[in-house]
Amino acid sequence: MAEPKASNLTWHGGHVDAERRAALLGHRAACLWFTGLSGSGKSTLSTAVEAALVARGVQAYVLDGDNVRMGLNSDLGFAPADRAENIRRIGEVARLFVDSGAVVLTAFISPYRADRAAARALLPDRFVEVFVDPGLAVAEARDPKGLYKRARAGEIPSFTGVSAPYEAPEHPELRVDTGALSLAESVDAVLAHLQSQGIIPAP
Amino acid sequence: MAEPKASNLTWHGGHVDAERRAALLGHRAACLWFTGLSGSGKSTLSTAVEAALVARGVQAYVLDGDNVRMGLNSDLGFAPADRAENIRRIGEVARLFVDSGAVVLTAFISPYRADRAAARALLPDRFVEVFVDPGLAVAEARDPKGLYKRARAGEIPSFTGVSAPYEAPEHPELRVDTGALSLAESVDAVLAHLQSQGIIPAP
Repeated sequence: MAEPKASNLTWHGGHVDAERRAALLGHRAACLWFTGLSGSGKSTLSTAVEAALVARGVQAYVLDGDNVRMGLNSDLGFAPADRAENIRRIGEVARLFVDSGAVVLTAFISPYRADRAAARALLPDRFVEVFVDPGLAVAEARDPKGLYKRARAGEIPSFTGVSAPYEAPEHPELRVDTGALSLAESVDAVLAHLQSQGIIPAP
Repeated sequence: MAEPKASNLTWHGGHVDAERRAALLGHRAACLWFTGLSGSGKSTLSTAVEAALVARGVQAYVLDGDNVRMGLNSDLGFAPADRAENIRRIGEVARLFVDSGAVVLTAFISPYRADRAAARALLPDRFVEVFVDPGLAVAEARDPKGLYKRARAGEIPSFTGVSAPYEAPEHPELRVDTGALSLAESVDAVLAHLQSQGIIPAP
């Protein structure tokens, strides 16, 4: 690419500011970053939390592997550089949603600490890392898409937890053991955390 | 890239649906796609419409050249393929915001009909193309960033309207002549259109 990258651009200051949006919406903006193995329950939990939040009048929205992979990131594959770019773009989109005042939930394996740290850095004071952690045995036993079975048979190269690393969060804001807790209990744990942090009001 | 692109993915159906979001927010979702020359007033108008919508309780948010270029699309330059990818990603992000129930406003030159048509195709029945059109003479006379002057001096290759084409919309939902109308009148024209289409309620 011979042409210069964007330069001399300034972030627009004329937009509606965060305080005004929060006052109008009745809650603070945040990014709930769900991370965990395939089969850990990220998608199920994040979607259930979204529904619970919307029922409480919160402007909540889930970005997940399937809908983002089909659209924004449909040009990306699963090679290491593509995986990193996938997570980078998701972090940037989450930032835009947070800037709009929303509670955005992201549900991606996001196995690398460095990628999650980069997303956290984009969202100072707004990033809530939720480690969805039933343990590998439970996730693999669930195997909703039959992926672990295929990975163990050697049919999927670089499958997280089997033949590629999952770097567990060291200091997540919240860890949810979806093996021990029911879905309703897991949702309540997330909502309780958001209340304790003043992100959403008590019901 | 040797690895396969994403396949066998399905759009999640478990999310909160559009009707429920519209009922809770009190307005329909839409994408207002502002297009026009540099200096036409896209950024000023879209930001003013955002403020007017938020004041009326609408969940509105502007994506614009500066904030998206600094974040999501910071890896892209201004070569033709990069410009097309820039607009593609913006269309996809707009789709996510519309899916969240918001009124999203995009303010990019977006000079090519094919790129705008692709964004429209992503947003069936939600795409409102707003042609911000004071004419080239007015836009060039404003020249807020001194870009026309530099382009006429040959310092900027492929500058839209000078040395690169701007393909004017043939059937925009709305055309706003920001040379003839004041900013307040221009905002009112956009709001009146949104009301006439049932996207936002009467104040």
